[in-house]
Amino acid sequence: MKLVNYQLKELDESRVGCLINDQVLDLQDAYKQYLISVHEEKSVDQLEQELPSNPQHFFTRGIPAIEKAQKALNYNLEQEAIELRMNREELRLETPVPSPSKIICIGKNYADHVEEMKGDIPEFPVLFAKYDNALIGPEAYIEKPAFTKELDYEVELAVVIGKEASKVLKDEAFQYIAGYTIGNDTTARDLQKRTPQWLQGKTLDRSTPIGPCIVTTDEITDPANLQIKSFVNGEERQSSNTSNLIFDIPFLIQFISRLITLKPGDIIMTGTPNGVGFARNPAQFLQDGDVVGVEVEQIGHMENKVVE
Amino acid sequence: MKLVNYQLKELDESRVGCLINDQVLDLQDAYKQYLISVHEEKSVDQLEQELPSNPQHFFTRGIPAIEKAQKALNYNLEQEAIELRMNREELRLETPVPSPSKIICIGKNYADHVEEMKGDIPEFPVLFAKYDNALIGPEAYIEKPAFTKELDYEVELAVVIGKEASKVLKDEAFQYIAGYTIGNDTTARDLQKRTPQWLQGKTLDRSTPIGPCIVTTDEITDPANLQIKSFVNGEERQSSNTSNLIFDIPFLIQFISRLITLKPGDIIMTGTPNGVGFARNPAQFLQDGDVVGVEVEQIGHMENKVVE
Repeated sequence: MKLVNYQLKELDESRVGCLINDQVLDLQDAYKQYLISVHEEKSVDQLEQELPSNPQHFFTRGIPAIEKAQKALNYNLEQEAIELRMNREELRLETPVPSPSKIICIGKNYADHVEEMKGDIPEFPVLFAKYDNALIGPEAYIEKPAFTKELDYEVELAVVIGKEASKVLKDEAFQYIAGYTIGNDTTARDLQKRTPQWLQGKTLDRSTPIGPCIVTTDEITDPANLQIKSFVNGEERQSSNTSNLIFDIPFLIQFISRLITLKPGDIIMTGTPNGVGFARNPAQFLQDGDVVGVEVEQIGHMENKVVE
Repeated sequence: MKLVNYQLKELDESRVGCLINDQVLDLQDAYKQYLISVHEEKSVDQLEQELPSNPQHFFTRGIPAIEKAQKALNYNLEQEAIELRMNREELRLETPVPSPSKIICIGKNYADHVEEMKGDIPEFPVLFAKYDNALIGPEAYIEKPAFTKELDYEVELAVVIGKEASKVLKDEAFQYIAGYTIGNDTTARDLQKRTPQWLQGKTLDRSTPIGPCIVTTDEITDPANLQIKSFVNGEERQSSNTSNLIFDIPFLIQFISRLITLKPGDIIMTGTPNGVGFARNPAQFLQDGDVVGVEVEQIGHMENKVVE
């Protein structure tokens, strides 16, 4: 399932849907239809508990809500109930999880990127944070403040947590994942490097696109073998495979959940491969009007324009 | 006003109250009584909008809710309506703001602490993050995992934001503050220092006491002149004054809000003075059973036991 946060163009309400080819199915509406078919009656409150229409609430519910969504989708496909599907042109896609309680980023997790940044291969995963002020959706503009001259792209595979996770062993880690998405960990290098802690260059307002959708774990059974790429104005800049991660996803979940209890909706951004603008010769940073494309195999492609 | 998050011992419900000497006044109940006196009728929904009983909702509403609370308190004091006040023994104090959207910490913000840590005085504020998994209340235990051998205390003056703040100038910064509290930025030095980013040593589950109360800005008009101290098992370890901050509070709000939009309930921890366990000779870290006391003038004193 490819889960999205969508808004109808004339409305402000964010709702959870899923992609069916070029269309979007509203999942709560589809679930209602499914419940009628099995003669189950639910109150509005029960429905909101089981499959919230609001994307933040949906992902905070985690895997149980995804299971209901899968039933709704399956029924819709079986019945070919196309009247609940909307065309992409009628709607905007927004940030899939707008307010995760944590956005945990992994630094230095591809050897070739560590090398281009002239760093050392880490002995332990390097964790740093973003706040939700940074997040934007797949169709939004990346906002570049005039005071950074060194805005840079970083395509990453992002993991969305589906179940509270504390002291999870790596063999069980996949049970705690809701799905996967693409993150562009846009970074102001000048701000990142002016103090020893990276945070201030990593969490500028409306800097970090996430999306276009969250692909559930039934569709991506091997996240350790996905092509990952970025483009600036159509020119390929990064190209690697998630098989090159120094610390893989199960290890990261084991490592992090020993320190920090993960909650449904939390996002782990797994790190970026080589090819960032900072490491080019000469360095080449994002400018007003540039379009950054990011893509991860089996998830999709997302393009965000930079606006100063 | 000294705002608290309290729970009656037999109940699980968290409610916002304020301290009156050794008693706690329930603020929503007091506000109801005030409204009756001025012949205003409000629905339950209106009441929850204006002065939410839940502390997280209350601080997310910010300054408008605090203004209502002040009216409620004033009326209660005028009327000497002591039947709405509870004795401290009947209740527990919990984390004043349990889930801020951001906890922004300032490193290296007292010169003598920078010196004891053998660092350099920073040209710009050093920002780093915690997540809300770390927060505990003033009466809770600090949880020490067995895998850290170097758990350390750091008393800090903490600022609670009262109004959305973006690109605020330092002259206007105080308008955006809800109040002040004490934070103990408990840090696992071994985990903090094993990678170049401090996050993993700073946000262990249930490591960071906040409290005991949030003192509003009418009571603390000069946060740049408050004695600040910490103690381990009664022995004084840190003693300084917030006048020694390298970057003061108005500057920090200007600096941060240029990068990051602050929201009501967000917490800024302003940094710790010298005297931490790491810098003692020999280093002296927190052990199972130790009691850490922290205090800031005009706010109060908070003691938390360390439990492995």
